Amino acid sequence: MPNLLLGEFLGSAIFFAFGCGVVANVSLKESKGNGGGPIVVYTGWALAVMMGVTVSLALGNTGDLNPAVTFYKLLMGAYTVPVAISVMIAQTIGGVLGGALVWLAYLPHWEATEDKGAKLGVFCTSPAIRSYGANALCEFVVSTMLFLVFFSMGSKFVSGANGFPPGFGTYMVGMAVWAVGCCFCGPTGYALNPARDLGPRIAHAILPIAGKGGSDWAYAWVPVVAPMAGGGAAFVIAKALGLI
Amino acid sequence: MPNLLLGEFLGSAIFFAFGCGVVANVSLKESKGNGGGPIVVYTGWALAVMMGVTVSLALGNTGDLNPAVTFYKLLMGAYTVPVAISVMIAQTIGGVLGGALVWLAYLPHWEATEDKGAKLGVFCTSPAIRSYGANALCEFVVSTMLFLVFFSMGSKFVSGANGFPPGFGTYMVGMAVWAVGCCFCGPTGYALNPARDLGPRIAHAILPIAGKGGSDWAYAWVPVVAPMAGGGAAFVIAKALGLI
Amino acid sequence: MPNLLLGEFLGSAIFFAFGCGVVANVSLKESKGNGGGPIVVYTGWALAVMMGVTVSLALGNTGDLNPAVTFYKLLMGAYTVPVAISVMIAQTIGGVLGGALVWLAYLPHWEATEDKGAKLGVFCTSPAIRSYGANALCEFVVSTMLFLVFFSMGSKFVSGANGFPPGFGTYMVGMAVWAVGCCFCGPTGYALNPARDLGPRIAHAILPIAGKGGSDWAYAWVPVVAPMAGGGAAFVIAKALGLI
Amino acid sequence: MPNLLLGEFLGSAIFFAFGCGVVANVSLKESKGNGGGPIVVYTGWALAVMMGVTVSLALGNTGDLNPAVTFYKLLMGAYTVPVAISVMIAQTIGGVLGGALVWLAYLPHWEATEDKGAKLGVFCTSPAIRSYGANALCEFVVSTMLFLVFFSMGSKFVSGANGFPPGFGTYMVGMAVWAVGCCFCGPTGYALNPARDLGPRIAHAILPIAGKGGSDWAYAWVPVVAPMAGGGAAFVIAKALGLI
Repeated sequence: MPNLLLGEFLGSAIFFAFGCGVVANVSLKESKGNGGGPIVVYTGWALAVMMGVTVSLALGNTGDLNPAVTFYKLLMGAYTVPVAISVMIAQTIGGVLGGALVWLAYLPHWEATEDKGAKLGVFCTSPAIRSYGANALCEFVVSTMLFLVFFSMGSKFVSGANGFPPGFGTYMVGMAVWAVGCCFCGPTGYALNPARDLGPRIAHAILPIAGKGGSDWAYAWVPVVAPMAGGGAAFVIAKALGLI
Repeated sequence: MPNLLLGEFLGSAIFFAFGCGVVANVSLKESKGNGGGPIVVYTGWALAVMMGVTVSLALGNTGDLNPAVTFYKLLMGAYTVPVAISVMIAQTIGGVLGGALVWLAYLPHWEATEDKGAKLGVFCTSPAIRSYGANALCEFVVSTMLFLVFFSMGSKFVSGANGFPPGFGTYMVGMAVWAVGCCFCGPTGYALNPARDLGPRIAHAILPIAGKGGSDWAYAWVPVVAPMAGGGAAFVIAKALGLI
Repeated sequence: MPNLLLGEFLGSAIFFAFGCGVVANVSLKESKGNGGGPIVVYTGWALAVMMGVTVSLALGNTGDLNPAVTFYKLLMGAYTVPVAISVMIAQTIGGVLGGALVWLAYLPHWEATEDKGAKLGVFCTSPAIRSYGANALCEFVVSTMLFLVFFSMGSKFVSGANGFPPGFGTYMVGMAVWAVGCCFCGPTGYALNPARDLGPRIAHAILPIAGKGGSDWAYAWVPVVAPMAGGGAAFVIAKALGLI
Repeated sequence: MPNLLLGEFLGSAIFFAFGCGVVANVSLKESKGNGGGPIVVYTGWALAVMMGVTVSLALGNTGDLNPAVTFYKLLMGAYTVPVAISVMIAQTIGGVLGGALVWLAYLPHWEATEDKGAKLGVFCTSPAIRSYGANALCEFVVSTMLFLVFFSMGSKFVSGANGFPPGFGTYMVGMAVWAVGCCFCGPTGYALNPARDLGPRIAHAILPIAGKGGSDWAYAWVPVVAPMAGGGAAFVIAKALGLI
């Protein structure tokens, strides 16, 4: 278990450092990528997950990097409850470190950026139109679809002994994250991952970021609860479909 | 056959949910991807087909996800007529579900968007310059080229026993869809697939989308008939070339 | 040899149809991709070569699709002179067909587009700053680099028995074309291929394109002569380096 | 050792020619890619490294193409000190050649471009907000993360006997460079490689570039020292993690 927690912690830190980094790059003032637009953001997050999973795999881990994934693996019997909870905590602490690394890398840009919302947006998601029910519905529907794709990628017909080499599985997970970015960023900024949102949000709250505003804790439950529910729903569907 | 229909239905639902989702992301008001531009749309549709084919393969299916593909497979003798028709219906119903999932995911954005054409454009294609003959010619020429590429990918010199692992075939289908997006979106928005257009168009017609306009049924035959004709033409050419 | 010529002809037609198509998509008036920008063009051409090579391979061919590649293969002894010339002619006629397919697919957009230069630009390249010596130097330097990469991809250390599966070689050729687009489009629009420029330029000259201007024959020698010289130079360098 | 130095020299020349080329394409006046934006730059650099590594591998080399990578390999015992220094010099001279090739390819565009900073920016990096400590911190943090990803890619769980074929490793290195571009270009333009910055900066200083300004030697130490420190830090972390 030490290696498991280390892999989830470090893999998540790399994943969320790259992911939050791309938002910083396109949205902070004076950043060279400012105005680079949505395609840069979606590409960056897709590559971020590849980098994080690679680091996690290298440590002998399976690379969940998402408490909702850990949750459906718990339902599948891959973890005991204490292990699953430890993994989720490791992922979230990884998210705090990831946020801190972005704060360091972009250090002179926080003071240069006046917009408090842009600064918060580097760390965590926010709804385009605030409506908690609809926002949670979006995160639930999209994370269910994403996890159904993940279950499919693990199917004996697609991967495993008959399928792609390990590195290509990691690559395809990146493609799936590219897909949800391009296609479902719109309403909520596609958290789909409690640790991706909560970890860096904690970083935003505790770091001495120049001229920061509030951490919008009122919204924080949506990207935690809805993806977890999506993990459960995807598990039920995948079971019914015979994918697991 | 149950698995076949299930795979085509669910794979198509995922394919068209992602595909329609990317159009929603770049075109609906207040969406975070609004103005993301053509590269996001083409990338999104390319990834959408990878996701859909992955789900379809996982259910033990071959992943047609396009009635025009099913049509040329019927001509090749892979299906009986009743099976082919059932598959096409499953794909189209999948398209209805895909459209419905996008409606749900983007729920608060329909009211925020005034432009009825933009809302319809999330679900189905429309011509840049309305001229049914030229529009059908474009869909026919491009779908014939696309299917000729698909036949080539299945050639013994390119894939199969001598060629790429299963996951890479799925990936290359995504590359082909990326290609038709980048290169031939211009005149008609590259339907190239009757179910991709008809299924979500039905969803647009029956769902209670806030402030929607008509479903432009006058154009609906073009993206159904022309790709089917392209499937037939590609079959004839592939046969003449010895690809099948 | 019939299969060889057929493969080069059809593969080139598909390659240049997709490639010219992406320029039409971003530059013709009323096209849905109008204004999509450089990234769409470079991505489209990269995918175009993958599609063309796939079709060419499927016909049992090696997929040169470029007279300059055929030229260095002639120097390597892979062809006799008459075969090499036949292959180059097949590639160029493929380019004419590719241009014609784009003309058909975008039929209503030629009249809608007033700019004669934009219409010509769909078919063939033109210099950003007209200076034949510098333009030829650019095409020479960049095609030499590109072909050196191709020689490297064929090295025993990178591909072949120790290396990637066939489909991945095709994919990497696409990556190389993506690279030259992103990095060296600037001065001359990266022809790097006599057939890519000459074939569609002939199509522009002979097709009844609505409101077309001249075909700029004064420049036509640059994208023919300079890439051929680059092929020769790359052959000499590759030989000196022991790559062949 | 001759092949090693040749591979590092030529691979670096190709790498940095493509990389500097993409900046020229989007930033020089009259260039066809002018205004293509950040996504073109990040994609171009990612493909540039694939091209360079391919050429380096083809010459029987391992393709460091970065003195900081050579430095951690020295720490790992893969090189003696004199070999490591020779390799670093070969990489840097490769960078001078790469810069010279871009100067030639874009020859008419230097006079057309008035902005001296834009011309320098083709060759080497500069900080968005000049603050040497923060700039060096950014280069240090990001290069440490990048090299940690490289160490992970070399892990027995990810590559090698159990992992991807050689070409896919090269491809994944490209993905990692795409990631650092998208996610961490902002503050310093992601040198992460002493030769990438110093070599072309020397080219800028010695070439007769029309209307050039100074070569900003005051900043030149940052992209040399910080990535080397990152290489050392990544070595220590990778060792502690058991990755090497």
